Amino acid sequence: MRNFNQFTITDAVLERISGAPDPRIKEISEALVRHLHAFVREVRPTQEEWAAGIDFLTATGHMCTGSRQEFILLSDTLGVSMLVDAINHEAGGTITESTVLGPFYVPEPPEFSAGADISGGLVGQPMLVTGSVSAPDGMPLEDAIVDVWHSDDDGYYDVQSTADDAGLAGRARFRTDAYGKFHFWSIKPAAYPIPHDGPVGKMLQAQGRHPWRPAHVHFMIEAPGYEVLVTHVFVSGDQYLDSDAVFGVKDSLIRDFQVEPAGQAPDGRQVDRDYCHLNYDFHLKPSTKTASRAA
Amino acid sequence: MRNFNQFTITDAVLERISGAPDPRIKEISEALVRHLHAFVREVRPTQEEWAAGIDFLTATGHMCTGSRQEFILLSDTLGVSMLVDAINHEAGGTITESTVLGPFYVPEPPEFSAGADISGGLVGQPMLVTGSVSAPDGMPLEDAIVDVWHSDDDGYYDVQSTADDAGLAGRARFRTDAYGKFHFWSIKPAAYPIPHDGPVGKMLQAQGRHPWRPAHVHFMIEAPGYEVLVTHVFVSGDQYLDSDAVFGVKDSLIRDFQVEPAGQAPDGRQVDRDYCHLNYDFHLKPSTKTASRAA
Repeated sequence: MRNFNQFTITDAVLERISGAPDPRIKEISEALVRHLHAFVREVRPTQEEWAAGIDFLTATGHMCTGSRQEFILLSDTLGVSMLVDAINHEAGGTITESTVLGPFYVPEPPEFSAGADISGGLVGQPMLVTGSVSAPDGMPLEDAIVDVWHSDDDGYYDVQSTADDAGLAGRARFRTDAYGKFHFWSIKPAAYPIPHDGPVGKMLQAQGRHPWRPAHVHFMIEAPGYEVLVTHVFVSGDQYLDSDAVFGVKDSLIRDFQVEPAGQAPDGRQVDRDYCHLNYDFHLKPSTKTASRAA
Repeated sequence: MRNFNQFTITDAVLERISGAPDPRIKEISEALVRHLHAFVREVRPTQEEWAAGIDFLTATGHMCTGSRQEFILLSDTLGVSMLVDAINHEAGGTITESTVLGPFYVPEPPEFSAGADISGGLVGQPMLVTGSVSAPDGMPLEDAIVDVWHSDDDGYYDVQSTADDAGLAGRARFRTDAYGKFHFWSIKPAAYPIPHDGPVGKMLQAQGRHPWRPAHVHFMIEAPGYEVLVTHVFVSGDQYLDSDAVFGVKDSLIRDFQVEPAGQAPDGRQVDRDYCHLNYDFHLKPSTKTASRAA
């Protein structure tokens, strides 16, 4: 177990981890070592490039705080998050497609009653969101948990605010009624660049890429007996639909956010200016195991 | 550029980075995406496992401080550091073999004159180190920079101390004389576990591995016209020579730290107890480019 060269070291490391007590940890560790070494053997980094890689990972870790998750951004922008999502959520039939969680989800958001305005004082075009949650065959799912979150009119999430008095805005939990329906009011979200003032932003620039995501509303939907659905609904016509920085767009998740004139909205609310209306009917996938939150 | 599945997303990411202006960044980015995606497709992580991976990287980043480099430990323990070293430093003939830099190097250590005691008050068995630096053909290299650092008798480096008054100890810079020679006094280093109170320690435990490194003295040697040599000299007979946690041991780097009785040492110093004597003659590799520090 010494005198390793660039060809023998991989087997030496594999031998060293061959006694890992947990078979899944052994499997993941072995695959990591093989693929990581293959990457290094292919690119043949200089010592300076290796040090730059260490510095990049360190800076990425230091950028992570309670409200900023730079490693999720890295995973998202390298297509890894969508790859993991695709592996775990094969759609098909009427089942709603999934997409990335992103770095801005806050677990256990405050619950609002049906029809509430969750804009939290944000200024923008009023948005009515209506929708339903059902089984693949259309059977309504009552009391499903619907977590929603979206950016403001400038493309920022509430958790990105540095203001001392910043509260939650554009973020809430709803429960579906006996017909599997939910609805709420907020403001229309805008397209936005992912946070690009850190190492991931530098990486995107070095790779000749822009950091923008098309405008969307996030949904995480959970009902007993069904897989947790993590998805977005995108605004049709957005200029970044074909170049989403995190590769999350699927045609089935794009909807018109239909502009309606001022007046009485479908839920009876009186609106004094034009507003937009998004409707999306979600179909959950029956679970083969006990339901649990996605992340 | 949408509707990606687990098989099409890799090409989509590669397409996105195809316009990277710097060809080397493009090459490294493309290889990273291919190997990283192949790893993910092989192990098929659940969302929970993906989240655990994000958490591991984040914790590793948060563990990094001015005196603790957890990502270097991760690279070292996965065999990546030795692989990069092997790629960049093919030895052969009389050229001294290299090994890992490790996380405890401090650039620009204070320079001491020949024969100085660099133990900084550390208690342990006195150690005389003598050596020379020469070209492959044995031609002495005058005024070469010899940086040395090593652990104390308990296996700790000076930079790991949390004491307020902790200074440098077991760490210095020397320059070779007209005969290419250098020598100094310190104390004999001990075997030690790499810092294992962080994420890398947890990884080693999960992989069924111990964190120990065999006792050694680090050297970084630089002379104009030659490649920087980063290496250790290991203490012969150490129980961890065949299971070094970072895979750094090479037979050519093992030496007896010969125990000598109290009395007058070869450099004329009077020693009042038994001491050990390490001698190593280093042969540098001629550089094909302008010399620069390794990291």
